Amino acid sequence: MPLKIKEEHGGNIHYASEVLGISTDEILDFSANINPLGIPEALEKVLFSHMEALIYYPDPGYGRLRERLSEYVGVSPENVIPGNGSSEIIYLLLKAQKPENILIPAPSFSEYEQAARNAGIPIGYCKLREEENFRPALEQMAQKMMAGYQCVLLGNPNNPTSTLLSKNDLYDFIQIAARCGTTIIVDEAFIELTVGGAGNSVAELTKTFDNLFVIRAFTKIFAVPGLRLGYGIGNEQLIKEIRKMQQPWPVNSLAAYAGDFLPEAGAYLEKTKIWLEVEKDWLYKKLSAIPGLKAYIPHTNFILLKLTESGTDGDSLTEWMAQRGILIRNASGFRFLDKYFFRVAIKDHAANQRLVEAIEKFFTKK
Amino acid sequence: MPLKIKEEHGGNIHYASEVLGISTDEILDFSANINPLGIPEALEKVLFSHMEALIYYPDPGYGRLRERLSEYVGVSPENVIPGNGSSEIIYLLLKAQKPENILIPAPSFSEYEQAARNAGIPIGYCKLREEENFRPALEQMAQKMMAGYQCVLLGNPNNPTSTLLSKNDLYDFIQIAARCGTTIIVDEAFIELTVGGAGNSVAELTKTFDNLFVIRAFTKIFAVPGLRLGYGIGNEQLIKEIRKMQQPWPVNSLAAYAGDFLPEAGAYLEKTKIWLEVEKDWLYKKLSAIPGLKAYIPHTNFILLKLTESGTDGDSLTEWMAQRGILIRNASGFRFLDKYFFRVAIKDHAANQRLVEAIEKFFTKK
Repeated sequence: MPLKIKEEHGGNIHYASEVLGISTDEILDFSANINPLGIPEALEKVLFSHMEALIYYPDPGYGRLRERLSEYVGVSPENVIPGNGSSEIIYLLLKAQKPENILIPAPSFSEYEQAARNAGIPIGYCKLREEENFRPALEQMAQKMMAGYQCVLLGNPNNPTSTLLSKNDLYDFIQIAARCGTTIIVDEAFIELTVGGAGNSVAELTKTFDNLFVIRAFTKIFAVPGLRLGYGIGNEQLIKEIRKMQQPWPVNSLAAYAGDFLPEAGAYLEKTKIWLEVEKDWLYKKLSAIPGLKAYIPHTNFILLKLTESGTDGDSLTEWMAQRGILIRNASGFRFLDKYFFRVAIKDHAANQRLVEAIEKFFTKK
Repeated sequence: MPLKIKEEHGGNIHYASEVLGISTDEILDFSANINPLGIPEALEKVLFSHMEALIYYPDPGYGRLRERLSEYVGVSPENVIPGNGSSEIIYLLLKAQKPENILIPAPSFSEYEQAARNAGIPIGYCKLREEENFRPALEQMAQKMMAGYQCVLLGNPNNPTSTLLSKNDLYDFIQIAARCGTTIIVDEAFIELTVGGAGNSVAELTKTFDNLFVIRAFTKIFAVPGLRLGYGIGNEQLIKEIRKMQQPWPVNSLAAYAGDFLPEAGAYLEKTKIWLEVEKDWLYKKLSAIPGLKAYIPHTNFILLKLTESGTDGDSLTEWMAQRGILIRNASGFRFLDKYFFRVAIKDHAANQRLVEAIEKFFTKK
């Protein structure tokens, strides 16, 4: 049975379970980059205790949620807007912002392109070079930007390259952009999943720079992709324009209460960092040691890899793994990557071990 | 303390509780038209048993949900699209459909206008006449339509007038529209909250008429406005175009399982009809008997009313009631209505009694 799991996004265990004929519980999913520590207990408690909220419309101002988010990020509630996942914020932000053109480093999350195309904005790409290990080249980006881009949209950390820009480097870049009249959008969906955690975030710089907009989400860090809760941080004017474009109740009532757990999130975030620091290095080393594989140094909870042995490619590996109930992300669909690339999430140690063993077996069976 | 509850939508108990300084539990909310029987037990069970779904991305194809919805409605899964509440479907449908102009009967749900404006579509109104008790005048609408409208958007039952068009009348109207090349969009958010129930729905006519698009939702009938689950029913081409405009995961993972309860919904729907038949007539008669008040005959779970005594208006009544913890819907914001109109939901008998007593007191205290 040929299994073609080649999709826009990772994490589609529903499709995989149907094709494989096994239950979703039996699938080991390395294709979605979700915190393997699972939903924080305190968040689960909050959600369970507010099930009755489903019988009411959410507060259309999302006052309580915005307050909790703003405290968590360190800005004012007026500078925060919740959305139906960060996807919604990205889509509406570009429509509200309406730049004449946009610069996107690539490879990066495919939704950036989709959202720009959806808003009818001409896209320029800044190619991250394989020979430089996909280093996010800010100098190069600044040069392109100064040549006349009104907007730059980048992920930090970047997906699928797992690279991270320092706060200092970004500060300088945003400052140059301010002089050019260019808006910088930073998607920080994975920022709490770096060893430095939210300390790497530029969200608070929105107080200094009106041309900075930051996007965050509960999705990855708190392991709730099904809850659909993302948020944007930026200047009040733009926030208001995005709100005008939203439907009256973009965020469901459960998600509207999810912020209540944030004051207690500290221990979970700490545990996440400790797990990440250990497993990131362990998995990187193990995968690097497999002949026929090149691993790129990860800075967040996933690793980009390249198959270097002739006769192997992402298609065959993805399919071989899927037959064994393990999903990885074929990365050939990312702009500027080819069929030899794939991406794996970093999970708990037992799962990571199974991944390594399976990939090793893939090479030895040949 | 002047309390100005004058908003786009009813059901904002959050705002009211803040202004009144009382808990949301103490508020008797007649401003939102939600089924007072509450969440069906079987639905609640389904939601509780799928809380773990929050840690996964929803199936982007929403295959399981579409299947359940299509069985419930009596069409094919390809003709159904779920959305983040029916609001999302209305907004995206108009953008996907892109008619050159649109005809909207009014007064009606304000989101119709909003969505048309958002999509940049010029709006023509078909005024429902007060002197005809806001009868939904299909002949008049057909005439206007034939003068050159590419799209007609109407609610059936209509909000806030609580009027209902028969399936036969609608059939003829849709047939005329088909000849004119006009698309008819029918918002059936309240259709199961009529005495005839889903028997009044034209959803199955989408199999006969390519120019018909029907919008439904879980929101009102199953008392889950916080879940955010609406759906559209129509021709496959249009459904695909709407899907393209949606974000990858518009519906959250809990809502994605909500359809599982539909095969067991029968008893709840029956109970709803019995309650509605009794309370609708009781409340209408009671309110009609109050001097200074004109009630319009309701066909669904809310009643439109007009204050006819000099010195009274919707503002003063709304405020007076709110001070007593009872929210009603000031209807002055609806197109073609004035400051003398308001709307109340029909709730359980005890609540309805309290409403009647409070309104009676409003008149006698003067």
